[in-house]
Amino acid sequence: MQDKPIHIGLAGFGTVGTGLARILASNREWLDKRLGRELKIKTILVRDLDKPRSFIPEPSTRFTDKIEDLVEDQDLDLVVELIGGLQTSYEIINRSLTSGKSVVTANKALLAERGPELFALAAENNLGLYYEASVAGGIPIVQTLKESLAGNRIESLTAILNGTSNFMLTEMTKKHLDYEQALILAKEKGYAEADPSLDVEGWDAAHKLCILIRLAYGRDYPFSGLPVQGINHVDPYDLVKAGNFGYVLKLIAQVKERSGSLQAGVFPALVNKDRMLAKVDGPFNAILLEGNAVGPIMLYGQGAGDLPTGSAVLSDIMALVNRQTFPNNTGFLDSQLKTANILKPELTVSRHYLRFTVQDRPGVLAVLARIMGEQNISIAQLNQTQEAAGQYVPVVLMTHAAPFQQIKTALQEIDRLDCVRSPTTHYRIL
Amino acid sequence: MQDKPIHIGLAGFGTVGTGLARILASNREWLDKRLGRELKIKTILVRDLDKPRSFIPEPSTRFTDKIEDLVEDQDLDLVVELIGGLQTSYEIINRSLTSGKSVVTANKALLAERGPELFALAAENNLGLYYEASVAGGIPIVQTLKESLAGNRIESLTAILNGTSNFMLTEMTKKHLDYEQALILAKEKGYAEADPSLDVEGWDAAHKLCILIRLAYGRDYPFSGLPVQGINHVDPYDLVKAGNFGYVLKLIAQVKERSGSLQAGVFPALVNKDRMLAKVDGPFNAILLEGNAVGPIMLYGQGAGDLPTGSAVLSDIMALVNRQTFPNNTGFLDSQLKTANILKPELTVSRHYLRFTVQDRPGVLAVLARIMGEQNISIAQLNQTQEAAGQYVPVVLMTHAAPFQQIKTALQEIDRLDCVRSPTTHYRIL
Repeated sequence: MQDKPIHIGLAGFGTVGTGLARILASNREWLDKRLGRELKIKTILVRDLDKPRSFIPEPSTRFTDKIEDLVEDQDLDLVVELIGGLQTSYEIINRSLTSGKSVVTANKALLAERGPELFALAAENNLGLYYEASVAGGIPIVQTLKESLAGNRIESLTAILNGTSNFMLTEMTKKHLDYEQALILAKEKGYAEADPSLDVEGWDAAHKLCILIRLAYGRDYPFSGLPVQGINHVDPYDLVKAGNFGYVLKLIAQVKERSGSLQAGVFPALVNKDRMLAKVDGPFNAILLEGNAVGPIMLYGQGAGDLPTGSAVLSDIMALVNRQTFPNNTGFLDSQLKTANILKPELTVSRHYLRFTVQDRPGVLAVLARIMGEQNISIAQLNQTQEAAGQYVPVVLMTHAAPFQQIKTALQEIDRLDCVRSPTTHYRIL
Repeated sequence: MQDKPIHIGLAGFGTVGTGLARILASNREWLDKRLGRELKIKTILVRDLDKPRSFIPEPSTRFTDKIEDLVEDQDLDLVVELIGGLQTSYEIINRSLTSGKSVVTANKALLAERGPELFALAAENNLGLYYEASVAGGIPIVQTLKESLAGNRIESLTAILNGTSNFMLTEMTKKHLDYEQALILAKEKGYAEADPSLDVEGWDAAHKLCILIRLAYGRDYPFSGLPVQGINHVDPYDLVKAGNFGYVLKLIAQVKERSGSLQAGVFPALVNKDRMLAKVDGPFNAILLEGNAVGPIMLYGQGAGDLPTGSAVLSDIMALVNRQTFPNNTGFLDSQLKTANILKPELTVSRHYLRFTVQDRPGVLAVLARIMGEQNISIAQLNQTQEAAGQYVPVVLMTHAAPFQQIKTALQEIDRLDCVRSPTTHYRIL
């Protein structure tokens, strides 16, 4: 491991900043193993120095309310901007890049509205400007478009990008709430802010869509030109009607290429219940891409929250460090990994599906039940149908959670019984 | 754009190799824009020089049957190994790394069985050994584990990694085929090979799982120690029974960490129909991860095929080139991107959901239908219920595909009618 730690300057110490600091603290050993250099939050820029903090990265971390302490500190390896908004955040990123520091940001509004000039500035200075956390929280969609699918022409991108709206629509659909009730619930759960307009009117999804369009198509789509409609006028009556037709309503962000032009927008739309996007419920996000080589790809995960978004920020920090230090890192720095400690499959605890083929006579079920009872296996559901009535019948059941070893022991005994015709079929239940 | 192209040496020109060459040819301009250097297949190593080829990368591409022409050509920037198997492939990768060339491979069997020594060799030589295409075709799971989720401890990984088995189980479940019938169908569709044992007995999924365990946990899990069970003994009767309980059977590859030890295996298991993994049908793959920061993440896509797997090989080539040449590439080399040509939303063609609120009297529906007919909008489904019978009733319908402009024109006329009480509710159908 190299001696010198990576010094991070952090702007903003709210939900995501604290999340990042917590991940760094709890995964420290793991990060060393993957990266070989310690990640240290040296300085944190905050508005209010007197505000009590629920978590302090380490005793040596310096809190400051002066931008200069971040952007002009030549000892910082990179700056992480997590304050949001369009003014101070712009100044921080601009001045950090100008003074030679790569930047990681989660600021979707700023990138959607002033991204082009900031990306140009980073390129001129040959520095990194990373922004995985700006779209869809912990889902690695930026990295996927930037590198993994970079050889594809993206034919379309259809996404659920706003967790607040998706949570509200899910609640309205499943619990028959109206819009106002769903909003109150979203606020209680911390999914909606005091002023929810950015989320429910579609602007947040629109910011994210602009960023994805740039990545997927290599063109700037002016944010002001994007048609945006939110969920704030959705009537629960239509959710019921859509359901009757076999559809659910989702707030969709979509872009398609049509003979060299882009068709993009954010709008509520009906999605057939059989489609995977229709299964994306609650505060989750998903992005469905159609690439000309890869075909359809979907990425699914939590679109917000302290730890998921902190995870995305951390992935950018690690990418920056790796590319500067170990461009060929295959995942871990040790060239020889240790062999894993292996837990025997017999110790796995899960529910089980069992199908016995037994004689169709009184008392047989009692014998099976006794043997399973002796192994502490309890039956959750049992199904014995008449379809195959005859000398032998199938008895199908699902158990409650039990160690595989106990199932094996019980089956060995059962399969030796005279009343059992053939070896019992056994599957685990996930 | 830099002048010198990247010279690729390709070992093997079967399905994936040809797929890669086709993608390079069809996305050439696009790749230049992202990478700034031309990707050129200089040499292709094949077993049979006389075999007719359906596609030739370019006239200058040299076909050879001598390994030396690949591994000893100092003009090659990297070698792509796509011949599979354990012997010649090992020799090619070993000699390429030893002679200073980074390697991209799709060879899951080789990496699962001899990965540790090859990764060590790459690390010693400070070269790249990339293998995105070895697991789950075009799904960027390797990159995601290696970088995007690298700051997470992975608590569990549950995946559908064998497209052949998943296709067969899907057909057996939905069309009530037995195992042999499903296998014939899989062969007809090109999803199963003449000898399907690697797929249906679970070995292919097991190879992939070994690779993912290494990436997720930083430990080598000996392939020979992995419990493996395939789908070759699945009785369609159990699929029906599982369905009655609300479950589907999937071939699952899974690893979990339990107090420092790993519990891993490949086995058929019942999955609740409400879970997203249960929706992964046909030849598709999916990987569900649980990270200690990011929470649950799922990646879904085609697990095999010439273009999806070619796309994964290409992503590795691009990553190698980028990291050597433009480590801070934000996606495109131009620091200023062009503004997108924007297609008006009015031109979007889709199906539509409409809810009218109209007077409950004869002739009203005829008026609505006439106005829509004049705009060439045809009705797919209509629903008028009694629930709100009274002076005004809701009429809900879904149209066939129609341009948004025609819907707008029709709605403007309809909403002016005396028999219509309030503005029509309108949603697009995805």
